[in-house]
Amino acid sequence: MISSSGENSFIEWLRVNNPVTLGSVLKGIGDDCAVFQSDTPRPWLVTTDMLLEGSCFRLGEAGAYRIGRKSMSVNLSDIAAMAGIPCYAFVSVGLPQNADAELPKQLYWGLKEVADTFGVSLIGGDTNSWANDLVISVTVIGRATERGYVTRSGARRGDWIFVTGPLGGSILGKHIDFTPRITEAIQLHKQVDIHAMIDISDGLAKDLHHICKESRCGACLQSDKIPISDAAWKQSNQDSRSPLIHALSDGEDFELLFTVSPLDGENLIREQPIPGIQLHHIGEIIDREVWMEKDGVREILEPLGYEHSFGSQFG
Amino acid sequence: MISSSGENSFIEWLRVNNPVTLGSVLKGIGDDCAVFQSDTPRPWLVTTDMLLEGSCFRLGEAGAYRIGRKSMSVNLSDIAAMAGIPCYAFVSVGLPQNADAELPKQLYWGLKEVADTFGVSLIGGDTNSWANDLVISVTVIGRATERGYVTRSGARRGDWIFVTGPLGGSILGKHIDFTPRITEAIQLHKQVDIHAMIDISDGLAKDLHHICKESRCGACLQSDKIPISDAAWKQSNQDSRSPLIHALSDGEDFELLFTVSPLDGENLIREQPIPGIQLHHIGEIIDREVWMEKDGVREILEPLGYEHSFGSQFG
Repeated sequence: MISSSGENSFIEWLRVNNPVTLGSVLKGIGDDCAVFQSDTPRPWLVTTDMLLEGSCFRLGEAGAYRIGRKSMSVNLSDIAAMAGIPCYAFVSVGLPQNADAELPKQLYWGLKEVADTFGVSLIGGDTNSWANDLVISVTVIGRATERGYVTRSGARRGDWIFVTGPLGGSILGKHIDFTPRITEAIQLHKQVDIHAMIDISDGLAKDLHHICKESRCGACLQSDKIPISDAAWKQSNQDSRSPLIHALSDGEDFELLFTVSPLDGENLIREQPIPGIQLHHIGEIIDREVWMEKDGVREILEPLGYEHSFGSQFG
Repeated sequence: MISSSGENSFIEWLRVNNPVTLGSVLKGIGDDCAVFQSDTPRPWLVTTDMLLEGSCFRLGEAGAYRIGRKSMSVNLSDIAAMAGIPCYAFVSVGLPQNADAELPKQLYWGLKEVADTFGVSLIGGDTNSWANDLVISVTVIGRATERGYVTRSGARRGDWIFVTGPLGGSILGKHIDFTPRITEAIQLHKQVDIHAMIDISDGLAKDLHHICKESRCGACLQSDKIPISDAAWKQSNQDSRSPLIHALSDGEDFELLFTVSPLDGENLIREQPIPGIQLHHIGEIIDREVWMEKDGVREILEPLGYEHSFGSQFG
């Protein structure tokens, strides 16, 4: 169809506004495919996310610029979760037929601003219009650093569990306006041997379950160590759920949840090596089941959190 | 969000139904990113296409299985246009909330069938539902062969222009049920030095203009040499436009349009080296402007064809 092809006005716009200067990009905008190359065998990381109006965001409330920022940021957050360096982005958009001409402009400026911040080149895409709401699909290709990439599956018994910031209540704003933890993940990965990592998109409890499932282990959180955001307190005032429940189950905080050896954990707590970020030691990896301990009593922690997708049609 | 993450039931399904055995895939389904690696410096090719119900296809007429096939095939056609080998695919889907459970199943079987045919591994994706029509976004990553990749920009004055099959009337069926010319492109590229190539998605006239624009040259087609499909004749019986106009302007034939030196061109015509495919020599590359010659008279050939996208909002 129209991948990266010249007749697509967004692509033409990109070609003018986003000249590719990276040596590794052999063809940017203007052919059937984008082309890049590298002479080092470091692994490539690829992630893709589709954001749907009404389901993933409310355009009227957020505005197209912030939705553009979010669409890029959620993908970069996935690259951060593997301690990777983001390199290239591909953006496909389905625009409402009756959309104002400002909509795509604002959207692309938001996408491009975040891409520029993290040195990501927008080198391909596809734009069409249709008689439906706005849809944006972004694919980001990144690379592992020389330290290698980090998965969800490397947690070991005895590991300390960390989170990079306070959690909960992201619906009050952070779910759109957040900074993907690219820089922090790379810094951490230089400093210590990260055994397992994930970005908190579904909620702390559910994302911890993901790590435990992939690492074939369990975990125990200390309830009094879980950092609770101001937004979680505000949300708690508006509903009947505690701030802790918000911190455990609200999705889209996009902080990093990771595990390291106790020795590395002690170093991180003592040195707090990431500028502007406080690292919180919130629990330990154990053999099986996911628990939360409060006043010396352990209870099973269910995978509370946001349920994506369409159920069990493939189950 | 949910790239490649375990909670996504499509992704779980893929994990079971599509075990990745390629040595170069270090992480398939089940983490924040897919991970692959290669120790040869051959360039990577990336293309992405978003297909929107009502705008790009009619679900009720075509059915989800054929739409799945088409969604993969249009991307593979872009890889073919650069004479590449497709390797990895990433599929994001927005499903109508009220969709039958059969819809995603049929869609994915269609996607997977084409992927399997061409040795492509489905290693990531994202699925959500929303209160709108079906949208599918596919990104394919391929590699150049040892001969290198082919662009739109390498046509030279005197080159012979070729097309891989009869054109026009694809709306009668071929626009959905076509075979991307992956194998043919790789065979051709081994046989001769392809100077420029594109897949015919917008229509012969328009795609020839794309080659001329990127190669900074002109072209002259011989009207009596343009292969006209049976479908173009059928379409012509139903409207007031000639079969030739259909062959020139109907999009989505997904044949390859390419240029080679006259010497290579003569060899191709004499040997017809691609099994099951007749190569048609339809014109020459010249200095400037795009023309069509009929009975010794040249007329300017406008970039007739399908107009994608949303106009000139970025003009």
